[in-house]
Amino acid sequence: MPKMKAAIFVEPGRIVLESKPVPDVGPLDALVRITTTTICGTDVHILKGEYPVARGLTIGHEPVGIIEKLGSAVSGYEEGQRVIAGAITPSGHSYACLCGQHSQDGAGTRHGFKAMGGWKFGNTIDGCQAEFVLVPDAMVNLSPVPDSLSDEQVLMCPDIMSTGFSGAESGGIRIGDTVAIFALGPIGLCAAAGARLMGATTIIGVDTIPERFVMARRLGIDHTVDFAQGDPVKAIMALTDGRGVDVAIEALGTQATFEGALRVLRPGGTLSSLGVYSSDLRIPLDAFAAGLGDTRIVTTLCPGGKERMRRLMDVVASGRVDLRPMVTHRFPLDRIEEAYELFSHQRDGVLKVAITT
Amino acid sequence: MPKMKAAIFVEPGRIVLESKPVPDVGPLDALVRITTTTICGTDVHILKGEYPVARGLTIGHEPVGIIEKLGSAVSGYEEGQRVIAGAITPSGHSYACLCGQHSQDGAGTRHGFKAMGGWKFGNTIDGCQAEFVLVPDAMVNLSPVPDSLSDEQVLMCPDIMSTGFSGAESGGIRIGDTVAIFALGPIGLCAAAGARLMGATTIIGVDTIPERFVMARRLGIDHTVDFAQGDPVKAIMALTDGRGVDVAIEALGTQATFEGALRVLRPGGTLSSLGVYSSDLRIPLDAFAAGLGDTRIVTTLCPGGKERMRRLMDVVASGRVDLRPMVTHRFPLDRIEEAYELFSHQRDGVLKVAITT
Amino acid sequence: MPKMKAAIFVEPGRIVLESKPVPDVGPLDALVRITTTTICGTDVHILKGEYPVARGLTIGHEPVGIIEKLGSAVSGYEEGQRVIAGAITPSGHSYACLCGQHSQDGAGTRHGFKAMGGWKFGNTIDGCQAEFVLVPDAMVNLSPVPDSLSDEQVLMCPDIMSTGFSGAESGGIRIGDTVAIFALGPIGLCAAAGARLMGATTIIGVDTIPERFVMARRLGIDHTVDFAQGDPVKAIMALTDGRGVDVAIEALGTQATFEGALRVLRPGGTLSSLGVYSSDLRIPLDAFAAGLGDTRIVTTLCPGGKERMRRLMDVVASGRVDLRPMVTHRFPLDRIEEAYELFSHQRDGVLKVAITT
Amino acid sequence: MPKMKAAIFVEPGRIVLESKPVPDVGPLDALVRITTTTICGTDVHILKGEYPVARGLTIGHEPVGIIEKLGSAVSGYEEGQRVIAGAITPSGHSYACLCGQHSQDGAGTRHGFKAMGGWKFGNTIDGCQAEFVLVPDAMVNLSPVPDSLSDEQVLMCPDIMSTGFSGAESGGIRIGDTVAIFALGPIGLCAAAGARLMGATTIIGVDTIPERFVMARRLGIDHTVDFAQGDPVKAIMALTDGRGVDVAIEALGTQATFEGALRVLRPGGTLSSLGVYSSDLRIPLDAFAAGLGDTRIVTTLCPGGKERMRRLMDVVASGRVDLRPMVTHRFPLDRIEEAYELFSHQRDGVLKVAITT
Repeated sequence: MPKMKAAIFVEPGRIVLESKPVPDVGPLDALVRITTTTICGTDVHILKGEYPVARGLTIGHEPVGIIEKLGSAVSGYEEGQRVIAGAITPSGHSYACLCGQHSQDGAGTRHGFKAMGGWKFGNTIDGCQAEFVLVPDAMVNLSPVPDSLSDEQVLMCPDIMSTGFSGAESGGIRIGDTVAIFALGPIGLCAAAGARLMGATTIIGVDTIPERFVMARRLGIDHTVDFAQGDPVKAIMALTDGRGVDVAIEALGTQATFEGALRVLRPGGTLSSLGVYSSDLRIPLDAFAAGLGDTRIVTTLCPGGKERMRRLMDVVASGRVDLRPMVTHRFPLDRIEEAYELFSHQRDGVLKVAITT
Repeated sequence: MPKMKAAIFVEPGRIVLESKPVPDVGPLDALVRITTTTICGTDVHILKGEYPVARGLTIGHEPVGIIEKLGSAVSGYEEGQRVIAGAITPSGHSYACLCGQHSQDGAGTRHGFKAMGGWKFGNTIDGCQAEFVLVPDAMVNLSPVPDSLSDEQVLMCPDIMSTGFSGAESGGIRIGDTVAIFALGPIGLCAAAGARLMGATTIIGVDTIPERFVMARRLGIDHTVDFAQGDPVKAIMALTDGRGVDVAIEALGTQATFEGALRVLRPGGTLSSLGVYSSDLRIPLDAFAAGLGDTRIVTTLCPGGKERMRRLMDVVASGRVDLRPMVTHRFPLDRIEEAYELFSHQRDGVLKVAITT
Repeated sequence: MPKMKAAIFVEPGRIVLESKPVPDVGPLDALVRITTTTICGTDVHILKGEYPVARGLTIGHEPVGIIEKLGSAVSGYEEGQRVIAGAITPSGHSYACLCGQHSQDGAGTRHGFKAMGGWKFGNTIDGCQAEFVLVPDAMVNLSPVPDSLSDEQVLMCPDIMSTGFSGAESGGIRIGDTVAIFALGPIGLCAAAGARLMGATTIIGVDTIPERFVMARRLGIDHTVDFAQGDPVKAIMALTDGRGVDVAIEALGTQATFEGALRVLRPGGTLSSLGVYSSDLRIPLDAFAAGLGDTRIVTTLCPGGKERMRRLMDVVASGRVDLRPMVTHRFPLDRIEEAYELFSHQRDGVLKVAITT
Repeated sequence: MPKMKAAIFVEPGRIVLESKPVPDVGPLDALVRITTTTICGTDVHILKGEYPVARGLTIGHEPVGIIEKLGSAVSGYEEGQRVIAGAITPSGHSYACLCGQHSQDGAGTRHGFKAMGGWKFGNTIDGCQAEFVLVPDAMVNLSPVPDSLSDEQVLMCPDIMSTGFSGAESGGIRIGDTVAIFALGPIGLCAAAGARLMGATTIIGVDTIPERFVMARRLGIDHTVDFAQGDPVKAIMALTDGRGVDVAIEALGTQATFEGALRVLRPGGTLSSLGVYSSDLRIPLDAFAAGLGDTRIVTTLCPGGKERMRRLMDVVASGRVDLRPMVTHRFPLDRIEEAYELFSHQRDGVLKVAITT
């Protein structure tokens, strides 16, 4: 039985590179040899024990690689093709998928819905910080990479680009909207790029890290607000001349960012939430107009599937958005523990790391 | 200067019938002689001092009456016509209105949005529990009543029918949806009727008052859950075989109903909130899938304007929905204080009262 | 190799019952033993040679039956379960499906879109007017039938109920809409039921056959217009007092019905087209406001997939709509040629036939 | 009675500058002193007698100017403010407006809908190719111009920018869409800018005039197709590798462009039509998939109202789109007949002319 190297969750505080068997390929699967992957903020939550996964699980959900082997019932692909798959790998056949809610895929459950059920890699099945990954429901999820694009150019498509853009999409951004984004980590930066791509004309980003502000400007943010310099809600109300914003995107997962996003909305505005929260949230009565403000709060889990990936790669290929500058550090898979060390402590101005095999 | 009788907010605990001048008619206004009106739960909040309004203000926002006098710039109506106006009376010309968000009308403000700004009657201007009411922006708001409909048949259109239906509409109910409604007061009952009208095939109502359950069945609710008999969340999960509901409508304004509505949603479901809250709300982390459940929370303030009233009266005229049984008691305006006494204490199985002049 | 009886297209004018092999079951398929099926207007087009299919193909796309055998990669079902499948059997994994456009499924094509590609049964693969049918992509398409529902109760779900309802859905019908339906065959009747289910308050049906008018009244149509008695456009404009309708549904597939539907729209209205046309269409300049009327024309092919079937069966189970009276005649499979004879000539007031095995 | 100069339709072939009285100001009106305006393709149709208007009517519907006098019931503005108004000036209070369909405004009609009823300037009331224009329903329509923007920068907002963008908006363009635009006159060019602004990643423009292709590239079109060099449908299918486009925008008003737009759609695509047609249209059966292709055809008349204008000016102010290069020629009002001569014959590479007073 062939072996491969894989980054495995051992216990809170420990993700280590170990050897484990290359998986068998079921009829609907594809085995992909990873060429490039990355580490996500969610992986850091797993590392810290804040998000529980099974011990021994391979971590990672952002695969770029080469098809090594196709399942017996898979058609339409060839071994040797370069592909990506989304962080979310829906089955395509659950009731949730047939409702268009692929991220809540509950294939195999009684009613076909499962909260976050579409997120499998590095969560409920082995992930892609490894030499090989098994992609389930390959015909739904494998998306061929155009030759013109490098691995690094498409590395953000599986998760942060899809997630960030979905914050803009679920917010229903329209031409001429004013948008605020709370937190400018990779997700928030991609949300800004998405808001710009959908026609927002005033985009305000809230953070405090100078490197992020630099990147934010590159991706099309119009105004930056440093929350360490004063109340960001006041700053945004001042920037909008007291009007507030049409859409506020929360991209961190804290009460402060959630509440700030709610407070800067104009009446009838939309809070589009992307963050992963770790405690209950509070909706202040006054920020909610006592329930009479025609307020909308929407949450979105990263859209996956090959059509989503195709569209995002088309955005990259068109040159509309260039996320390459977000890859600030590179490591071979052999040194992934080092990469975790850097990324989890947010050292050296790191935004995203590329892990190559 | 002619005088009229009007129910006036004096101080918390006191709404009294007094004499005050019949108002002057501005160029865009219409003076309507009230023939029938009603008391809303919101009026009880005002009575109790829980929702602040100016002392001396005439209360009431559900007018049925006859046009007495038209403003000089108003065309398209005739004096003597029988009309209703919505509880919400948008200007039609604010930025909010031109965004289709008439209830957040901020006419006269710098940016044209004002939270709840469309609600004027008995809130920011004199209301209709009086012999006459001045309807602002008459061409936007006056809706002629078909001869075939009685005052009582259209009495619910201005507020509770519009509000209740909007709970179903904002929830985006589709053919075949399963819907839960938390609280079956007049608003919740109308939400049930709206859910039915939009094609929901399983409608579950939560309350504890037997008279409400009877009315709920009449309006098309399929299952009733008595929260006094046990946890309604468990009951609804059992009724749906563990699936949960597509849309949950909150129709009271408490943490318990809000949280219940959130907890019964299937992944990717929508909480449509109609209640007027009086304290901060808490979103439990687990009921929110940590922000990754593709959950939507939407709030709606009663839609107004003459087109909305026209459509609702058409629902009544078509016989699709008959809300007349909801009028359980009748009083002349002269005895409105008595009506408040009954309604505010929810005595004698009261659902809605009709006040006639 | 076991044999079965199947209704086969031989040549224009001839569909005959013949013996052919029971098909082999591929890994994603299910073999279903048909218990009840029906004949569709489209099958008559095939019979007449107006819609071309391969000679030797088994006809029929409305299956009710029992799972005989499941493919090796299919899970979540059991042999012996009673199921239906939609007339349209999408793969769930094409780009079209992942866009939510399952009916244009182009699985296996380069870009994943194929016009009408979701319609396979009796069109591009063997259909279900036979003892057995092979259902492709079984996990997407098999929908278990609740024990409480008879075969005949769910017989309309696979096609005409799904198609008819989609006419209302694609038209975007809202509470209080006025709707006209051109042609009250089975599809138009189901469109009427769908319009009613979505809250239309005035529904006007155009046809000339008395039996259809009777059924139309049962299904909730408010007014009927007999086109043989005069111009239906004039009649509808009179019924709506000159206003026109919000949504017009075309349910036949001719220039006359298409044009009538366009002419009765109020400015800004929607023409929702369901008919299968057999020649070019003409849009009269005046009926189109020279392209400036904010007119929408939408076409819809019957939505399929197990979630759609589940919802439609829920409509039946809830009692909201009862289509059983539409089954006017019953035949065993052995006499299907006789059934074609009756149905294709629309003899004896036939609406739909049930074919049983 | 004060007099002013105005460009008046005398008879087919003759628009002349004449003197006529400065209009009186009604209670809801505003009198605006025009500083800059332009000539639209529609005005050329009027000139040629192809679109009928009353003899003696002042032409023009794209006003930039200064408020000279406000009606007695108008508040929220000041005389001396610089403003624009849309080509379409809805009342805000008709049933159409309250449905959000402001362009089909039927204020004053029985049911409140009138095809193209929102288009009043230079159509049903005096327009703005004059020293003064009377703006109806001023509170709905006057939109203050930010000091930072010049007259020419906002000159395209009232019509072609609003119309062009609406082609993209009504088409429902999403991130990653492929879009074709048939005809690259001012409207088509603005449609391209709108498609880009909404996230289309491949935009293909069809025309034959070299100057238009140059401008198209500046505004973000990715590929140009010269219809004089061969069948544009074939060219677009080749450019999209046989897939077709998600959305096709028709921006001329002929059978050829309409049919081309239909033929390049992928199954399930949307044809968004902006052109003003002058004869019946034909929908070829094959291009329509016999009515089963889930095709959508939508038409849009230029959205108006002050909120629309505010948003478009925000697009300009943000620098996202710069339409100034489209103003290729400038004339004082005194020489407007000369401007018509140039523009109507499309001489000298003219795209748009600015007319100043």
